[in-house]
Amino acid sequence: MKFVYAFSEGSKEQKFLLGGKGANLGEMTKLGLPVPPGFTVSTDACKAYMASGDVIPEGLMDEVAQSLSALEAAMGKRLGDADDPLLVSVRSGAAFSMPGMMDTVLNLGMNDASVVGLAKQTGNERFAYDSYRRFVQMFGKIVLDVSASSFEEALHDLMEERKVAVDTALTSEDLKGLVTTFKAIVQSEAGVDFPDTPQEQLSYAIEAVFKSWNGRRAKDYRKMEGIADDLGTAVNVQTMVFGNKGDDSGTGVAFTRNPSSGESVPYGDFLVNAQGEDVVAGIRMTEPLSAMGNEFPECHVELISVMSQLEKHYRDMCDIEFTIEQGRLFILQTRVGKRTAAAALRMAVEMQAEGMIDKSEAVLRVQPAQLDQLLHPQFDPTAEYDSIAKGLNASPGAAVGKVYFTADEAEAAFEAGERVILVRPETSPDDLHGMIAAEGILTSRGGLVSHAAVVARGMGKPAICGADELNIDLGRRCFSVDRVQADGTTLTTTVLEGEIISINGSTGEVVVGEVAVVEPEPGEHFGIVLGWADEFRTLKVRTNADLPEDCEKALEFGAEGVGLCRTEHMFLGDRLPIVQAMILADTPEAEEAALAALLVQQRIDFEGILKAMDGLPVTVRLLDPPLHEFLPNHDELQARRTAAFIRGSVDPEAEHLWAAVKRWEESNPMLGIRGCRLGILKPALYRLQVRALIEAAVTRKRAGGDPQVEIMVPLTVIRTEMELIDGWICAEAEAVFAEQGERVEYLVGTMVETPRAAITAGEIAETAEFFSFGTNDLTQMTFGFSRDDVEGRMMPIYLEQKILNVSPFEQLDRSGVGELIRWAKEKGRAVRPDIKLGICGEHGGDPTSVHFCHEIGLDYVSASPYRVPLARLAAAHAALGAGGPGTTA
Amino acid sequence: MKFVYAFSEGSKEQKFLLGGKGANLGEMTKLGLPVPPGFTVSTDACKAYMASGDVIPEGLMDEVAQSLSALEAAMGKRLGDADDPLLVSVRSGAAFSMPGMMDTVLNLGMNDASVVGLAKQTGNERFAYDSYRRFVQMFGKIVLDVSASSFEEALHDLMEERKVAVDTALTSEDLKGLVTTFKAIVQSEAGVDFPDTPQEQLSYAIEAVFKSWNGRRAKDYRKMEGIADDLGTAVNVQTMVFGNKGDDSGTGVAFTRNPSSGESVPYGDFLVNAQGEDVVAGIRMTEPLSAMGNEFPECHVELISVMSQLEKHYRDMCDIEFTIEQGRLFILQTRVGKRTAAAALRMAVEMQAEGMIDKSEAVLRVQPAQLDQLLHPQFDPTAEYDSIAKGLNASPGAAVGKVYFTADEAEAAFEAGERVILVRPETSPDDLHGMIAAEGILTSRGGLVSHAAVVARGMGKPAICGADELNIDLGRRCFSVDRVQADGTTLTTTVLEGEIISINGSTGEVVVGEVAVVEPEPGEHFGIVLGWADEFRTLKVRTNADLPEDCEKALEFGAEGVGLCRTEHMFLGDRLPIVQAMILADTPEAEEAALAALLVQQRIDFEGILKAMDGLPVTVRLLDPPLHEFLPNHDELQARRTAAFIRGSVDPEAEHLWAAVKRWEESNPMLGIRGCRLGILKPALYRLQVRALIEAAVTRKRAGGDPQVEIMVPLTVIRTEMELIDGWICAEAEAVFAEQGERVEYLVGTMVETPRAAITAGEIAETAEFFSFGTNDLTQMTFGFSRDDVEGRMMPIYLEQKILNVSPFEQLDRSGVGELIRWAKEKGRAVRPDIKLGICGEHGGDPTSVHFCHEIGLDYVSASPYRVPLARLAAAHAALGAGGPGTTA
Repeated sequence: MKFVYAFSEGSKEQKFLLGGKGANLGEMTKLGLPVPPGFTVSTDACKAYMASGDVIPEGLMDEVAQSLSALEAAMGKRLGDADDPLLVSVRSGAAFSMPGMMDTVLNLGMNDASVVGLAKQTGNERFAYDSYRRFVQMFGKIVLDVSASSFEEALHDLMEERKVAVDTALTSEDLKGLVTTFKAIVQSEAGVDFPDTPQEQLSYAIEAVFKSWNGRRAKDYRKMEGIADDLGTAVNVQTMVFGNKGDDSGTGVAFTRNPSSGESVPYGDFLVNAQGEDVVAGIRMTEPLSAMGNEFPECHVELISVMSQLEKHYRDMCDIEFTIEQGRLFILQTRVGKRTAAAALRMAVEMQAEGMIDKSEAVLRVQPAQLDQLLHPQFDPTAEYDSIAKGLNASPGAAVGKVYFTADEAEAAFEAGERVILVRPETSPDDLHGMIAAEGILTSRGGLVSHAAVVARGMGKPAICGADELNIDLGRRCFSVDRVQADGTTLTTTVLEGEIISINGSTGEVVVGEVAVVEPEPGEHFGIVLGWADEFRTLKVRTNADLPEDCEKALEFGAEGVGLCRTEHMFLGDRLPIVQAMILADTPEAEEAALAALLVQQRIDFEGILKAMDGLPVTVRLLDPPLHEFLPNHDELQARRTAAFIRGSVDPEAEHLWAAVKRWEESNPMLGIRGCRLGILKPALYRLQVRALIEAAVTRKRAGGDPQVEIMVPLTVIRTEMELIDGWICAEAEAVFAEQGERVEYLVGTMVETPRAAITAGEIAETAEFFSFGTNDLTQMTFGFSRDDVEGRMMPIYLEQKILNVSPFEQLDRSGVGELIRWAKEKGRAVRPDIKLGICGEHGGDPTSVHFCHEIGLDYVSASPYRVPLARLAAAHAALGAGGPGTTA
Repeated sequence: MKFVYAFSEGSKEQKFLLGGKGANLGEMTKLGLPVPPGFTVSTDACKAYMASGDVIPEGLMDEVAQSLSALEAAMGKRLGDADDPLLVSVRSGAAFSMPGMMDTVLNLGMNDASVVGLAKQTGNERFAYDSYRRFVQMFGKIVLDVSASSFEEALHDLMEERKVAVDTALTSEDLKGLVTTFKAIVQSEAGVDFPDTPQEQLSYAIEAVFKSWNGRRAKDYRKMEGIADDLGTAVNVQTMVFGNKGDDSGTGVAFTRNPSSGESVPYGDFLVNAQGEDVVAGIRMTEPLSAMGNEFPECHVELISVMSQLEKHYRDMCDIEFTIEQGRLFILQTRVGKRTAAAALRMAVEMQAEGMIDKSEAVLRVQPAQLDQLLHPQFDPTAEYDSIAKGLNASPGAAVGKVYFTADEAEAAFEAGERVILVRPETSPDDLHGMIAAEGILTSRGGLVSHAAVVARGMGKPAICGADELNIDLGRRCFSVDRVQADGTTLTTTVLEGEIISINGSTGEVVVGEVAVVEPEPGEHFGIVLGWADEFRTLKVRTNADLPEDCEKALEFGAEGVGLCRTEHMFLGDRLPIVQAMILADTPEAEEAALAALLVQQRIDFEGILKAMDGLPVTVRLLDPPLHEFLPNHDELQARRTAAFIRGSVDPEAEHLWAAVKRWEESNPMLGIRGCRLGILKPALYRLQVRALIEAAVTRKRAGGDPQVEIMVPLTVIRTEMELIDGWICAEAEAVFAEQGERVEYLVGTMVETPRAAITAGEIAETAEFFSFGTNDLTQMTFGFSRDDVEGRMMPIYLEQKILNVSPFEQLDRSGVGELIRWAKEKGRAVRPDIKLGICGEHGGDPTSVHFCHEIGLDYVSASPYRVPLARLAAAHAALGAGGPGTTA
């Protein structure tokens, strides 16, 4: 196996072998650009090193020696030479960029001989010794693990001794002494003599880069970014060029277009007489790239020309590191540059206009997940703040407001004109009015598919869930956070009701006080790119919406129907007493009276939605949640009863409600009396809903509308359930048609959200005209993971220990849940070839999951309104063969 | 389509066409036995009648008329003839016996003409008119739906008028008048003239039989017995013979062997001068069959010969109805006779010895479900009692004892020498000591797989669950049952602590006071038949047992290993405080101390079990239930805290436990932190268990034993969970081997009890060496049915409405859960051909489910000790191709 490749052997396609940096250095070398020569130790070498338990693979150092000889021959210089020494940099370079996560050694080759040669060559002894002491310092720290502070203290002591304020005031003699001091520090701390031969230095440095692949920072970064642990890193050994050889030298970073706005103007930062680290570190004030034309006119022209050449070659915006050594331009690195969402959209549109890329490539240039940035307010990127806690980034966007701890108080404050953040241990349907009133929601419990998270995403409001560092004291109306300080003491921050906090739902950060927020600005390019996406995608995108307003928002975002209209939200608010009356009804007459009152309300709801979505399909799910969700909270009611007891009295209303709560109490509500089981227990309820919906559709049709009704039975498990309820639906619809003298078309289908429904999909499809996969519940039951219990407590451990790569509630689990969906699709289509198939779980807004839906041939995904654009783009990516499948486990 | 078959055309194989009765009448006719001639209207006719919405199928009555003519010709008599009339009986006869569930009409053909003929023929006018009035009465009631009491009142009035005490004292004139009165009653109540022509009568009667198929009683019976609704009934029209023509006549019922004991001696009841109904009705004292030899010596010899012929022909015990008409023997009916379990075993053994059947047939002659009768005490069949409530028959057998409402009090009473019935709303692991102390368990909540049910079956103790008529008042220590009386008033029965009740876990009946109980007596034939069963079956049978005593009991019953040893039961009782200390531990040290204390205990437990099961495989499941199950009850703790609060103080222990309860509280514990999730959260716990088990195995091996250890990881969902825990297990085992200088073999496998584990079984089998399907949980998750919530509340409705045919917790659901098991088996065997596969859910004790396990090729089923014999027999039936699959839905 060959381990080492000269730059001239590489090309940009080889990033898995040579790393991104090495591959691009190869590409630029081939293009004839002024790249300092060098070679790349491949990722294969790193993998062999790791596989053998950290042993340098046999033959590697021989290949390195040969490549080094070739490099020396080409440059006419030798490492460690006392006359004209070659110096090299040693940098990591993995297939995927991991900025700052791995190690770099510059000026390798410095020793007591070559420092003399460098002084000779540059005529600058001070520069030579400064480079030498910097090398010993960097090598000591990075390769030999000596603490940075030891070197800094020694430098500081010397400066005090010499009574100078800046290190540039030290003389070459001072620096020569410092080299000796630094080597002594190395000897003392690392227990080895500082390696003097360049060969030794190189061997040490390569091994250090290999090791850094499994350093803590690098591992954490890979986990966060979902990069595989077994890719390994390459090592680039490159001839050093110096931007700090004087005022005829300099260094900089440049982008071929503005990475923030996307404007097609070269953009960058530049420093005279400096090395690359100085630009990145931000110690000195950089100059804009345009200023370079004044100081280095020729190099500037050359750089602009190189940038233009690279952009054309890569057909994308490139990010370049360059150095000018004594008037000569070198390109040290290039890659396709990172950009903001706004810039990605603008570049895609403009590059297409320029003929550089076609529409499909333009669509692929924007990552679906990036779109969130454009649809929600964000913390001002220039704002400085300190977060006191971090929860799950449950719903994107930023919000600022006064803290309130109950839905009623949040609503009251909102009505008094205040901006509100609703803070709760967790939310329930009872809190809906408070969530509507709030700018954002913060909970200390619950995961990414908790009630708070799901509802907030539906509303497009920022939310942080499961921020378990928050100790919420509802009684005292405050929350506090304990933080252990550097000195080991604990600092408690307490936030009272009415105090202002800021939350960032995109990152999960909680900040005390107000952080400046910038409003979203999708802009013209957004619409253009999404329009192109629509040309490519085959998967339809619907929305999950329960109210006419949500429907309108979703239509703006391009929704092609409603995939899930949850009727339970229509049972809350001022209707709750009627619903409770229905549940508490002791006689069929009382139940019927309550249902009649609900009928009128439901019909109005449905008319509004059918009107908003005229001509588009609307899937209405019959009542799904357990009835006890409409009853008061167990513990609060218990408190009321206890209070009465202490007073020596009885609260008859509380006792009545308590009896109902106890009657409907369940050990595992997720697996209890809900969905169509509820319908079977209270058939009049489903008939009411069907009547309201069909009457609304008839009214719409009479008014010249085009209602497209799809009635969805929730939680079907058994074919006979579906047959039974389908019978009721058809009977009720026919009754309405007869009364009204008008018919409308409608479909009857079911939510497939239990494993058994998926397995027996063929049987159920004999009755069901469509399936909507409820992937939230299907995931819960397939894994046996209650989202309320497992996500907050187990998921962090599962991700930490790599038992799962990603939460199956975030990204659809292909091997388990996905297999069930695939199976159900096949069985369903076999029985009913034109059966409509879609998903309506939270996964409809996740790009990887959307890809899966496209891949197995579903008809649509349904996502919350603010996720519709993302789903459209992800569907286009999938149709274009990009955005491949992830794996949950 | 041919609808009517003469008896001579039928044979015993045609029971689906001719019904059981018709088929056997055909068979006997062919054998030349003295069967009164007749014909059978086929079930096809009934099906056609039902399919057309209760219209007599075209051509049927023509065929009946032709068959009637043929019958008249053969008998030389005519229906309605005034000289020598033919009379016939019309009886239902379905494929499966439904005793007493459908209608029969005797003496059809009586009218004003034929009564004269009958009087002439018999020379007994009184007999003729008595027959006539009986016919009008029976026909009126059965066919024309006239109330029985109207006839009875008229008869009564007449007897008063005539001042006679018995109806036999009425004269022929009286009876003639009564016929007129009865016809007037029919006219008045049914609104039609009593049909006078025999053809009309026959047409009415056939239709009445068809209709009785869908009568309430018949439908209920079919549901109970699992007989399909669409089979329909046949109708047998047979020449009447009279056992009540005088002292030279008689009638009886006979069995070729004793149906109760199985003894090979003809057995039966006999009445002189009587009709069949009189024997069955039990109005007159019958004589034993042996007495018949005195009164009817020739008929007796002929009957014994017929019985012998029938038994040889049917190669089984036959049940015969016969009539002697004026000295001549007629056989009216035969069928293979029903028998007790004890009789079934004895007959099987003796018939095999006699060479009548072979061993395989002998095995098939005993129904697995019957064995329960032999293993548990039963209410004395002769005892009379009145049940006040009926719950689910959760664990078979009968028990009598004093009522106690808490486990502690039950235990104290037991220790004081009392027999105890533990009555609870439901039980939890906390109640285990009370269940151990009790003779039987009665709960008002929970279904067939509730804690109480599962544990009671494991212990072989009678239990009734979900007896929701019981209002249990734990505070006042009593329960009461409200029963609505016939007069509409409500009778409340209250049972106080210490009062005696009797429960029948085989039927679900609760009785106040003591009912005599008979002890089980499996007897010698039990062992012989089960031994033969073992020769045929290929499926192994293990047991679910947690204690050495249970293992020993199971070994007696033929268990071939332990399929499920639940370690959680080892964490209760006096160990509970240690377990709580572990859960409450604030520091790793405190946790470790608690675990060390548990280690010693666990090792002793495992040694006992491995010793009991020496040489047989023992599958030990690592801790599975959620930790909060080991903490005090939420509501009780809340009450303690409230009590302290009212006193103005704080109960620190209660507060400490409360914090733990709240910390471990879950919304859906079934889908929460349990199984291997618990292990991952508390790795030291699993390591402790593995250490205890492996140390126990080493000790056993040193002592010359042969421990066969299988370590089972519960609730695996993801391959990586299995890999992680397998790694821990192997590491801990190796550590023990190193310390002890001794190795033992062991397997590591997993419970497959989530849908995802089944779907990804191929991945999991790369690590797991065996799968044990936990069909209880797999059913819960596949259906999304929490057994605690759905079984009690929804299941009765689902069964009533035929949404399900049987609870999937009782009988394995083939289409859903079964498909997952089949899939997992295929994927698992593909990866690891020698993977051991078994089931350890409650279904291991259900014959139909055992059949499924055999059919798909699992290696074993595991059942609670008292169900082991049943599983052995069911496995043999399956291997012999009998006991076919049922369907859940």
